[in-house]
Amino acid sequence: MVMKFGGSSVADPEKVRHVAARFVDARRRGLKVVGTVSAMGKTTDQLLALASDVSPTPHPRELDMLLSTGERIACALVAMAIHDLGEEAISFTGSQAGIITDAAYTRAKIREIRADRVLKALDAGKIVLVAGFQGFSRDTMDVTTLGRGGTDATAVALAAALGAACEIYSDVPGVFTADPRIVPDARKLPIVSYEEMLEMSASGAKVLMLRSVELARNHGVRVHARSTFSDEEGTWIQEGDDMEHPIVSAVTHSETDVVFTLTGIPDRPGVAARIFDAVAGAQVNVDTIIQNVVHGKAEMSFSVPNEDVPATRAALVGTQEELGSFDVEENHDLGKVSLIGAGMRSHPGVAAKMFRTLAGLGINLQMISTSPIKISCMIARTEIPDAVRALHGAFELEREPIAE
Amino acid sequence: MVMKFGGSSVADPEKVRHVAARFVDARRRGLKVVGTVSAMGKTTDQLLALASDVSPTPHPRELDMLLSTGERIACALVAMAIHDLGEEAISFTGSQAGIITDAAYTRAKIREIRADRVLKALDAGKIVLVAGFQGFSRDTMDVTTLGRGGTDATAVALAAALGAACEIYSDVPGVFTADPRIVPDARKLPIVSYEEMLEMSASGAKVLMLRSVELARNHGVRVHARSTFSDEEGTWIQEGDDMEHPIVSAVTHSETDVVFTLTGIPDRPGVAARIFDAVAGAQVNVDTIIQNVVHGKAEMSFSVPNEDVPATRAALVGTQEELGSFDVEENHDLGKVSLIGAGMRSHPGVAAKMFRTLAGLGINLQMISTSPIKISCMIARTEIPDAVRALHGAFELEREPIAE
Repeated sequence: MVMKFGGSSVADPEKVRHVAARFVDARRRGLKVVGTVSAMGKTTDQLLALASDVSPTPHPRELDMLLSTGERIACALVAMAIHDLGEEAISFTGSQAGIITDAAYTRAKIREIRADRVLKALDAGKIVLVAGFQGFSRDTMDVTTLGRGGTDATAVALAAALGAACEIYSDVPGVFTADPRIVPDARKLPIVSYEEMLEMSASGAKVLMLRSVELARNHGVRVHARSTFSDEEGTWIQEGDDMEHPIVSAVTHSETDVVFTLTGIPDRPGVAARIFDAVAGAQVNVDTIIQNVVHGKAEMSFSVPNEDVPATRAALVGTQEELGSFDVEENHDLGKVSLIGAGMRSHPGVAAKMFRTLAGLGINLQMISTSPIKISCMIARTEIPDAVRALHGAFELEREPIAE
Repeated sequence: MVMKFGGSSVADPEKVRHVAARFVDARRRGLKVVGTVSAMGKTTDQLLALASDVSPTPHPRELDMLLSTGERIACALVAMAIHDLGEEAISFTGSQAGIITDAAYTRAKIREIRADRVLKALDAGKIVLVAGFQGFSRDTMDVTTLGRGGTDATAVALAAALGAACEIYSDVPGVFTADPRIVPDARKLPIVSYEEMLEMSASGAKVLMLRSVELARNHGVRVHARSTFSDEEGTWIQEGDDMEHPIVSAVTHSETDVVFTLTGIPDRPGVAARIFDAVAGAQVNVDTIIQNVVHGKAEMSFSVPNEDVPATRAALVGTQEELGSFDVEENHDLGKVSLIGAGMRSHPGVAAKMFRTLAGLGINLQMISTSPIKISCMIARTEIPDAVRALHGAFELEREPIAE
């Protein structure tokens, strides 16, 4: 089994010992245990700050050399603590664990895992700690890091390579029908399908990063999202059971999107493509996109995560120079509320009920986007909590679903 | 050329940029530059503290995994700063640089350097940064660290492998005839032979660690000890010129030794050997040893560095159990003053003059040890500064020597 703990779970020596005890428990239950941990607490942020103090634009190869140390420190400390509890442990860097990536520094993708050394250590009865968030490129023989959500990706990829299940531990005990801080009677979901989890991660659920859910789906890895602080069962993310699923599984929300609206764009074929090529080339994750043509000029809106705003601006300046001037507005006052459910596919009335519920609160819909199993609305950010509560109630998510 | 900077030279971002500028200067003078740096400031101490917070007896393999990160961070940051100055740089871990060691974690010895990757990067015009203090074992495929003075050893070993000279930068501008804080007219020595430097390092000179001087002598590497903060010439450590050397080159002192005195030891053959086997087995660097036999019982005194006191105590307890009881006293109030000089070999009067000088100050000699090019006396620690000043004056070390 692969067990992953995030940075807040190993933030200080006491927590390191607690995590070590979790690994030892699993080993003593007879399991073969591979652990992967993130850097302690705010270590990665501190290393990034150090780099930017030294250099305005840190060289990407050297940035990876720098950042990869955080997870190595955490893994070595956990291994020490496991030894003190009387079990054998061995920590590996990404490259020692055979995690081979492409050579895209700071945002490398895992290509392959050569798990020989991990398997040998497991066969010798050891608990294996693998430094998350990193690998190495065979082309350059350099250390690489995997970017956002990198340690979750490490864990899922290891589970895929080893044919194991993957437990992702965090400070939330699973996936809920809505954020329990907003909806007190939100319910923990025992099982969520890959497709639903993808939509939930993409629309604001923070339990799992989109990227690791994609990896899990592509390799059929069962993922168990559960609490660092208790033994209760969390949520299993796995292949959906097509026979019985609720129409709506959860309400998610996001308050960190910024909406860009472009007006006065020349309405020529290929213009939209050129703009989104530029934005995507800057590694921006564009979410909702809406386009319309008014009086021979195109209007276009799209939302991006807060942290991608500077890159988006830069990319747009480039396309303005190339395509001719157009206007760009930013709206930082919007949020997104989404309904997710695999059963939605066969129930076209869901959208209408969602819009009715929000209209009943006097909430104005700024943008709408849909997928077969999701409906998202951009609304005023201040109205997000009310909207989440109203939708959770309207679809009766606090009640156990009845199989259809 | 190999250039080594210690941890205080890279303690903050501004100092990192300063060191980067030193490397760039050397490169622009047309040199091929290999740099090695220690961990920033107190990083290694902080990592050690973290390890001991997590575990009372940190597992040595994992301790090496942990400690090796400090130098990697420093090297990556220096490489970034060099890029900003317009030169190409690349940082390597010990293993990427081909530094192969034995598998003795926390105190590994360098066996061999396979410098292919370093040479290739140099040929491509890059400044190569090698993380100091570390290597890897081919037997275990694990990261190892080199223990005390490890980064100096890395630098000298790289210089040996590359057939280059080695510059060791620190906050002192070279090797002096005595500590300038005690003797204001102490003189910087332009050249010191390997043999003299070995004795000086062993008897308290802190400019270079004994270990790196030994490595340099064994491989004929010329070492230039000089200042981080100026361009002035420092001191070259190199093969001695047998034709002309001063009788006495320098006065050194040490205030960190502790003297153990053992009394009531059974006077049987092999007893002393057994005691020193045990002490050496605990990796203690025993310096002066004196033995005497009184009424059929042996008495023995020896000095060890402060940091080796706990290990020495533990080793002695073991031998007491094995050999039968004997008494152990510790004296923490002594210091050592030494005269070093390759010319001493042919001038037997040096010791007498030294003893006379110290007697003139009313100083009592507790222990004496000699080598062909060194005389050391243990005296009261409080009397060290007076003794150093008096000896420096008596042997006229403030004056340029006249070739004989």
